[in-house]
Amino acid sequence: MPSRRDISNWSEPITSSDHSLVSFAYGVPDPSLFPWDNFREIVTDIVDRHDRDALYYGNLRGYPPLVESICRLMEQRQIAAPADHVLVTSGSQQAIDIVARVLLQPGDVVLIESPTYAGAITAFKLSSARLASVRLDETGIDIDDLERVWQRSANCGGTIKLLYLIPNCNNPTGALMSPSKRQSVLEWTRARGVMVVEDDAYHTVVFDEEGGSEAARPIRAAADSEHVIYLSTFSKLLAPTFRIGWIVAPPPLIERFVMAKIAMDLATSALNQRFVDEMLRRGVVTKLTPLWRDAYRRKRDLMEAALHDQFGDALVWWQPKGGFYLWVGIPQGHQLKPSVAQCARNQGVEILTGEMFCVDGSGQDKIRLAFSAVPQEQIPEGIRRLAKALSSGKDDCGAR
Amino acid sequence: MPSRRDISNWSEPITSSDHSLVSFAYGVPDPSLFPWDNFREIVTDIVDRHDRDALYYGNLRGYPPLVESICRLMEQRQIAAPADHVLVTSGSQQAIDIVARVLLQPGDVVLIESPTYAGAITAFKLSSARLASVRLDETGIDIDDLERVWQRSANCGGTIKLLYLIPNCNNPTGALMSPSKRQSVLEWTRARGVMVVEDDAYHTVVFDEEGGSEAARPIRAAADSEHVIYLSTFSKLLAPTFRIGWIVAPPPLIERFVMAKIAMDLATSALNQRFVDEMLRRGVVTKLTPLWRDAYRRKRDLMEAALHDQFGDALVWWQPKGGFYLWVGIPQGHQLKPSVAQCARNQGVEILTGEMFCVDGSGQDKIRLAFSAVPQEQIPEGIRRLAKALSSGKDDCGAR
Repeated sequence: MPSRRDISNWSEPITSSDHSLVSFAYGVPDPSLFPWDNFREIVTDIVDRHDRDALYYGNLRGYPPLVESICRLMEQRQIAAPADHVLVTSGSQQAIDIVARVLLQPGDVVLIESPTYAGAITAFKLSSARLASVRLDETGIDIDDLERVWQRSANCGGTIKLLYLIPNCNNPTGALMSPSKRQSVLEWTRARGVMVVEDDAYHTVVFDEEGGSEAARPIRAAADSEHVIYLSTFSKLLAPTFRIGWIVAPPPLIERFVMAKIAMDLATSALNQRFVDEMLRRGVVTKLTPLWRDAYRRKRDLMEAALHDQFGDALVWWQPKGGFYLWVGIPQGHQLKPSVAQCARNQGVEILTGEMFCVDGSGQDKIRLAFSAVPQEQIPEGIRRLAKALSSGKDDCGAR
Repeated sequence: MPSRRDISNWSEPITSSDHSLVSFAYGVPDPSLFPWDNFREIVTDIVDRHDRDALYYGNLRGYPPLVESICRLMEQRQIAAPADHVLVTSGSQQAIDIVARVLLQPGDVVLIESPTYAGAITAFKLSSARLASVRLDETGIDIDDLERVWQRSANCGGTIKLLYLIPNCNNPTGALMSPSKRQSVLEWTRARGVMVVEDDAYHTVVFDEEGGSEAARPIRAAADSEHVIYLSTFSKLLAPTFRIGWIVAPPPLIERFVMAKIAMDLATSALNQRFVDEMLRRGVVTKLTPLWRDAYRRKRDLMEAALHDQFGDALVWWQPKGGFYLWVGIPQGHQLKPSVAQCARNQGVEILTGEMFCVDGSGQDKIRLAFSAVPQEQIPEGIRRLAKALSSGKDDCGAR
């Protein structure tokens, strides 16, 4: 069970209703780029068909045309996945939870990058797994540290089952794993008998200057299907509201996953699966993906420029190679009480603090700034407010 | 983990794509009564608003206007539940799973009616609970047997945590718990320190001749909020595609449930929550509920008449007091190999067999016939096919 503290930020409304706030808190696509017109057309077409099957549970592995569309998407990502290798899930959060619930026994060890996706931490904890963090650098997980952490965990007698990774644009750092590291991860996990869970939520937002889709080639593309469980989602590509993610795994595992899913929520919304499938079939996603990617790169640049403007060289971060976030180290003196997040909010800017992305007590000197959804013109103002929050005295955290 | 056998019927498409089949298999509302025109209006209004918040995760306890609408619905059901007592879930299947996951330790005992909802069985099993079945009669759970089963379980050293009940139109039998039994259940569980999980999926389809909403008064209406966890859903009222259910429980429990839910699927579709909320706010549900209820009663009557026509007095069942199903006992000689369900399918009619609704090995001489979704005019033909399936020789199960 995740503690209250792990997710305290999350039980708040996830979009702020206070529109005077500048929000760098949430990792969601830019809503101003959502194709409302295409969506309207799709929705009315589906509704006007009076399709009775759209009201029901449908095939519990996923709406077959959507599964087909996902298989085609997998091909574009250089992964050969027939339909029976695919399970549609209610977002990739559920995908992680299904994997955890089916494969982990209480006390099993899951190796994770540090920092990593807070939602994966909470899901693995809910299955009573022990989490062991491995160092991450700008080119991906540190293979030497992976071996060290494995040795240490093995000495403690834990069964080391899974290595959970976000090779493309790690959340929260934006780190992109290099091709040679992907190869090393594959070799190391094969040798050690550890299964890889590859979370590829940000596949489509690896910036072109970094090599785009070639640089984003999943670990799974070079692996046996038995060795890597691949997860992805439409939440970062279209919108989280659809709650559509998917798992690619060998059929015997998919069988076990679907049985767990049935007990968990029976089925994923038949209507939402149709909406997403039509967005794919009508080419909306293909057309817009490069535009979205480009918009995020411009926002990253704007945020970096604003940080330089306000802080000079006082703050440090890795330049994100894609994705939605900057993971920013704040200088020692600035670890304020009350928390940085509260100080920032008092100044009118929402951020997330680093602890929720780490399990080893680190992250306290870090903040995550999401640039994906915030309107471009608000970025400089948001960073100005952050500067005010960080420069206000240690105990002084007054309202703006 | 539920076994393959528990849910074998479920990993099939849940609406048959073979339209020559008559399906009595699935417990879903009548699609011919779905208010497509109202829905079209609602959907286009929401989409035309270009509401950015509708794309996001939203408040993780539920879309606040929908929570408000649910509170009003609870009032109509004589339950006082402020907003902080409510959690919106991704269908009531998830509601059951959340309750199981948060409250049960492996080996804890859950008391269930026999027969009961197959999805509850799978969810409790997924949390490694032990299930103890209690006899059910037409007026609800057998209180003497409840005490016996409790004694037996207590003697075996199990922690008896929950009593899971469907007082209104038990699935699969359609039994309606009498007011005096509701009172007895409350007293018994208070005395024994067992918490009630009241699944009220079929609240709105207790037939008027049985006393309608007064007869459907939930156990929770007379109980302390600490003693009864109340679950319901829009899947039987509107359509399962929205995947919207809810839990009513005291705020400290809701806190724990929302934290589990975040790890499980992060949030319920913001778009679907808006769709359902507008169906409530615009009075669509209020207007149509009595019409739907009446249609189900007529179909029950038709199915009973068709069974009498075909079988005379050879088959037995309790007349359902509401809901979607007939739970029919088949005579000894008719327990065919291959299974009755396969024989029926060969004759062009889909049914479910009884074992999946029981955990004590019973149910093998029962079938569940859902009358809710099948077109009225297909009911006699479906029952004719069933008669052919049951009258064909023990080993002869030929195609029609």
